[in-house]
Parts: sequence; C-alpha cells; structure tokens
Amino acid sequence: MVKITDVVVKDIRFPTSRNLDGSDAMNEAPDYSATYVILKTDKGEALSGHGLTFTNGRGNNLVVAAAETLAKSFVIGKELGDITKDFGTFWHELVAGDSQLRWLGPEKGLVHLATAALVNALWDMWAKSEGKPVWKLLADMTPEELVRCVDFTYIEDAITPHEALAMLKRKEAGKAAREAEMHEKGFPAYSTAAGWLGYSEEKMRRLAREAVEGGWTHLKQKVGADIEQDVERARILREELGWDRHLMMDANQIWGVEEAIANMRRLAEFDPLWIEEPTSPDDILGHKAIRDSIGNIGVATGEHAHNRVMFKQFFQAEAFDFCQLDPARLGGVNEVLAVLLMAAKYDVPVCPHGGGVGLCQYSLNIVLFDYIAVSGSLENRVLEYVDHLHENFEEPLTVKNGRYFPGSMPGYGATLKADSQERFAFPDGVEWAETV
Amino acid sequence: MVKITDVVVKDIRFPTSRNLDGSDAMNEAPDYSATYVILKTDKGEALSGHGLTFTNGRGNNLVVAAAETLAKSFVIGKELGDITKDFGTFWHELVAGDSQLRWLGPEKGLVHLATAALVNALWDMWAKSEGKPVWKLLADMTPEELVRCVDFTYIEDAITPHEALAMLKRKEAGKAAREAEMHEKGFPAYSTAAGWLGYSEEKMRRLAREAVEGGWTHLKQKVGADIEQDVERARILREELGWDRHLMMDANQIWGVEEAIANMRRLAEFDPLWIEEPTSPDDILGHKAIRDSIGNIGVATGEHAHNRVMFKQFFQAEAFDFCQLDPARLGGVNEVLAVLLMAAKYDVPVCPHGGGVGLCQYSLNIVLFDYIAVSGSLENRVLEYVDHLHENFEEPLTVKNGRYFPGSMPGYGATLKADSQERFAFPDGVEWAETV
Repeated sequence: MVKITDVVVKDIRFPTSRNLDGSDAMNEAPDYSATYVILKTDKGEALSGHGLTFTNGRGNNLVVAAAETLAKSFVIGKELGDITKDFGTFWHELVAGDSQLRWLGPEKGLVHLATAALVNALWDMWAKSEGKPVWKLLADMTPEELVRCVDFTYIEDAITPHEALAMLKRKEAGKAAREAEMHEKGFPAYSTAAGWLGYSEEKMRRLAREAVEGGWTHLKQKVGADIEQDVERARILREELGWDRHLMMDANQIWGVEEAIANMRRLAEFDPLWIEEPTSPDDILGHKAIRDSIGNIGVATGEHAHNRVMFKQFFQAEAFDFCQLDPARLGGVNEVLAVLLMAAKYDVPVCPHGGGVGLCQYSLNIVLFDYIAVSGSLENRVLEYVDHLHENFEEPLTVKNGRYFPGSMPGYGATLKADSQERFAFPDGVEWAETV
Repeated sequence: MVKITDVVVKDIRFPTSRNLDGSDAMNEAPDYSATYVILKTDKGEALSGHGLTFTNGRGNNLVVAAAETLAKSFVIGKELGDITKDFGTFWHELVAGDSQLRWLGPEKGLVHLATAALVNALWDMWAKSEGKPVWKLLADMTPEELVRCVDFTYIEDAITPHEALAMLKRKEAGKAAREAEMHEKGFPAYSTAAGWLGYSEEKMRRLAREAVEGGWTHLKQKVGADIEQDVERARILREELGWDRHLMMDANQIWGVEEAIANMRRLAEFDPLWIEEPTSPDDILGHKAIRDSIGNIGVATGEHAHNRVMFKQFFQAEAFDFCQLDPARLGGVNEVLAVLLMAAKYDVPVCPHGGGVGLCQYSLNIVLFDYIAVSGSLENRVLEYVDHLHENFEEPLTVKNGRYFPGSMPGYGATLKADSQERFAFPDGVEWAETV
C-alpha cells in the first residue's frame, strides 16, 4: 500500500531563447519549460512520482497553479493502488468529475496540460513502485489490464473496449520477440537538430553533415518563414542528405489551407516524407484537404491535437498519414493509450512529438510499448530526436546510429536531476537570477 | 485620443450552486462566475471598458491571472484608436503574437477565455467612447470597417475578406428598416427557466405554466441524466406547452455519438426543435453522424466550440442546424464576427449561448447586429433567455412576450453594478464570507 501524501509543483524554465534552439515559424524565441509535478508518498525517499508537461515559457506559472489544484482535489490522500486498479475511471473523474474546472477546457488547453503533468507523475510512481520503466510496465500488462486504463468516453463510435481487447490479444504472441528486438536493434529515430529556423545556412549545413556522419537516415527541416528561404534550405539539406535518406518538413501551423497546398507543391521537388503541422492543429478537414492535394507527400500532425476526440476525427476523416501525439499535451499515458488503440485500428503509424523538455523520454516509452504490444509494426515509424537539455535528466537517453534504445531505470524516464530542478527554477534559480 | 492606463481583473462568483440554478447533466452544481476585466483610461471616471468571460466557479482565479498577463502585455499603455483602427491585426497579435503564451492553447481553453474577457472590455470601451451600445456601433460600421475587425487566419478556405465585403454590401440596403423593426418588435427569445435538471417535476411544471402565460413560445429542457426521467419531463413540458409551441432539448455533452442517436430516437415523439450539445463539443464528425441519424430533429451546438476554426468545420461538414456561438468563449467580438460571416455564407442560423453571467447581454448585441447587417433573417433564430443574475448589471434587460428588445446604454451591456462587484468578489465579498 502506497499513500500519496503531498504534492510539489515546480516552474522549471530553460533559457533556450538565448541560442534560438527550438526556433520555428510560429515559435521564434521559446524558453523550453516544464510544469514539474512531484507526488510524495508515505514511503518517503523510497518512492515518489515525477511528471511533467512541456510549455514554451510565459504562462508556465498558470499551468503550475492548475496542476496544484488538480493534485489537491483528486490525488492527495489517495492510495496509489486505488487509482491504478481502475485507472480509466479515475482518469475520467480527473477530466470530467469537477464540472467547475471542466468548464475551463473541457479537456483542452492549460488545464489539460496540467492534467498531463499530474497523470504522468502517477505513471512514473506506479512504474517506480513496480521497479520497471513505463514501457515495460505497459508491455507486461494483460490486455484486460490495459483496457481498464482507458476512458472510452466519446470514442466508442470509433473503438469499443471489446474491440480493443481483441486487438491487444491478437498481438500477444509476438511480444517477447519484439521486446528482444528493441533491446538489440533499437527503435528508428529522426533528428531535428540541423533544421531549426533560427540557425544560419552554414550552421545548418554543418549540422546536417554531422548528422549523416552519425548514421541518421531521417532529418527534419523547419519551414514557413519565407518560401524562397525554405526552398534554398531544402536544397542544402538534400545536398548533404542525398536522395536515399529522408527529409521531413515542419511548418508549425503557420499556413492557411490553400497556402499550405501551394507551398508544398513548390517544395515537392525535394521529395519530403511528410509536411508536419501545415495549418491550424484544430483543422481536421483542412488537413484532409491538404492531404488530398499534395500527392505523395504525407501529412503529419498531432503535437497540438488536444485530446482523443480530435485524434478520433483525424482517423475517421483519413486526414493524416502520421499520428504525432504528444504525451504531455494529451492527458497523460491513459489518453495516449486511447490514441494508440485507435491508430492501430485505423492503421496509421504513430510517430510522437519529441521536441521540448522530456518529450523524447516520454515518447520513447510510448513507441516501445506501441511496437511491442499494440501495432507490432515498424513501418513508417520514426521517433523524433532533439539533442538538447537531456543532460538535466537522471537517466541518459541512448541513441546510436539513428536509433533509440530502451531505458532500464524504473519510472517514466523524465525525472529531472535535483541540481537542474534548482538551477532552472523560475524565477529564483541561478540560471535566471541575472536576467529576470 | 484615449490612452489605456491600467487594468483591474476581478474574480466574481455567484453562489448559484446553493439553489441548483443552472444545473444540467454535466454541471450538477455550478457557481456562475465571471472573470471581470476593467480597463482604465486617462479619461478617469469618464471612460473605462468592462468585459467578462463566464466560468463555472473553481479555476476562475486562473483565468483572472491569465487576463492580467494578457492585458499587461498587449493593452496597457496603448491608444484605443491604435487598436481599433486595425482591430483584426491587433486581435491576431493578441492570440498568436506571444508564442510562449500561444503554446498553452493555441486559441482554446483558459487563455482563450481570458482573451475573450479582455477583448470584450475593449469593445465595451470603444462603444462607450462612441456613446453607443455595441450592436449599434457594429450596425453603423461600413462593410470595410467591419472586415478590418476580423482575423481571417485559418478560415480563408471558407471565406475571404473579399467575399465578406461583398456579403455585407448586399445587406446594406435594408439595415435601417431592420433596426427599426428590432426596436418595435424585438428579437425572438426562448427560455431555459423551467428546464434545469436539478428542479423537481412540480417546480418544472409550475415554471413552464408561468412561461406559457408570459408569452413564451419556445422552452428548453435539460436532458441526459436518465432517459426515463427525460421522457417523463418531456411529457410534462408538452402537456404545458401544447404542440404549437417549440420544445428544445439540451444534453450538455453527456452522451457518446451512438448513445445520442438512440436517446434522441426515443425522445423524437416529443418533437424537439433541436438537441443541443448531444456529445463532445470537439466532435464535428460526431455531430454530423448524429444529425444524419435523427430525422427532423435539429442539431445545435457551439457554446463550447472554442474558435473560428472549429466553427469553420461545423459549417463545412454540415454538422449542425443551429450555430450557438458563445461570445465569451470565442475570443471576443472580433472572432464572433468571423463566425457570423461564415454562418451567413453557409446559411446556418446563429442562436448564441445565453446562459451564465452576462451572456444574454452580450448575445443580444450580437443577434441584433447579425440581423440588421449580416444575415438579414429571423428564420429559425431564437436567443436564449435565462432569468437569473440580471439584477447585478447596470442596464436592465428588456424581455417582453418572449422577445428581447435592444438596449440603449453605451457599451456592451454587461457592466456589473459596483455594489455587485463588491458583494460577489471571491473569496472576500460578503456573499462568500460565511462559506469559504
């Protein structure tokens, strides 16, 4: 028995805007930040749960306040086992049980980001209490246990618990072999390191060359500032990549629907694997229209799709080719599971969002589990890798020759070092003391 | 020249949960609340702007904090005229210009509610500075001036500024006659007063009888708690209403898609004019599926549709029969204008949300302008009337024989009396002092 006794929520911000790391068409100067939830238990130092959601800087304090409110209303004083034994029902209560808070979403925006941080902390605690990484905790569950973690509210017209159970049972046979394969060969990755919009062409070319030398087969370019510049940068990247490697493009929502179509027709000569976030993340039908108009270029989106209802419609409308769910914008692991199940049913590859803080760590857990127990396929699967800020986490990420390898430390993989929690605390940490 | 010098944002809450006013399937005990923005100017007492967004209670403090942040970043220190002369561009900056804050939505949830309160305060100030109610300020604008207030980002595939201009010009001829008609005959209204879920059947019957005696021709019933109870209550309401008056039903998002279809087939015998919010407000395709499966019953939704991109898709997919935009969930008047223009183009009647605090007041301004200058039609138009909390506003609402009449006081109609601002301040006002 583990009792959750207290919560501390920290406002952690990394001053990434100083170097334009993470700059894109919509986010010209982000300060990568985390609303960082620490759930404490009656086991003291022996067990706690750490969870986060990613934000871009200003306003992170509001997410912190929302996470504190949610934790105090729904989690503090509860037994971990009472939550996890019927986790889908608990999750539903969390997002819909307080109708006064629900009004502020529902299930979207700032409160849903806070929900994600809290839910991810619960999964981290659960996995630590079982002595496993989250991917392994999930992979070892029975289909029945997994289905109990999911809230099927509003998605039963796309997938029922019964269907989900049958799908998971069909994949049980090969689980052990796929898990062994992941340890041996790793999961395919792609890099955004070279492609940030704020980088000079020289820096981009150098980073692209290094990426190729490092064994990367997929590289992503940020587009959307100016079409002539996009074309020139794509040309440089193709010079470095050649034509056997893959080039992806990411517009970060900057275009309207018709603008996206026109620009991607122009960029088609560089044979992009996908165009990511070509327009508003809310525009399911717009993505469908774009997809229908740009030939072989895939449409990718999802890092800003705020809940399972939005993903349901992307699947139903056949509006995208790559499902880029974000494990900290969806309401944590439980809602991610709902989307993985729908993705498997509708046969859309899941390539989660990995930019930001801690998202590579979370997404690695998600894709390992997805491959082992849900999709059973690596076709068109590739996980984003962004190579900054990892030094702040307790568990190092293992990425070799363009592939991610499974972590082994118990938990969800994104526990910040105590020292980093202190240094990057906003506004009082030493990294901020001089500037604020 | 008017300079905006300061902002005060108040957390106002009315303890409506004590009487179950406003109770429905999803909101069993709301405390109707407002994030209340007061923008001060260099004209002192002579000119200020008051604006609000409606929330359900808990969490209103977070919206207050977000509104303060937005006001300080985008409004304080500016000239009113610099904002209003190119209001669409200003509005775009407000929702997209701070990419760090944008991450928390984008354009949805808590931050967008705060945006609404702030934008509505600007319109209130503008109208007061012109000595007109907002509906009249809008009705007196030229088509060019109106189009300049709209941000067409993400909706140009549905409507272009050029199309909008042409549409508005075509309606210029009859404006004066329609304005006179509104003064004389008023705008059709419906009442939710009798139908709250928490009311007893006796109370419901008594209120329905009083409504019929008061000249109401449309009554709305809350449904979704229990289908047998819904049927019984519909029977009672039909006994009181007869079959020449209209009965609407409102499920407040409680059902899944298939559940909504099954339940509405059951309730069809009571000939409802519409079913409102049958499922998740994000589920455009789900509303379309419901609409295609329940015969003549109209589908109504929109009070939780968070931005113009969502409405664009409801129009494009032909997913609803009644557009129930909420003037304080959309990002204020500017975004409401975008939706009105699309509604006119796609020929869907706009029947805005009127529950909550101040929404009847805002929505009245919106429908008057819509009729006078945009749609030019009253067909299937009816504005919600909920008869509580109006005594707290400076301008009384005039509703006679089931029709709303235009207000005449300058501003947006929802300026709270100073005394009410004080008494219902949370948590220190006298109305809360004993309970918190």
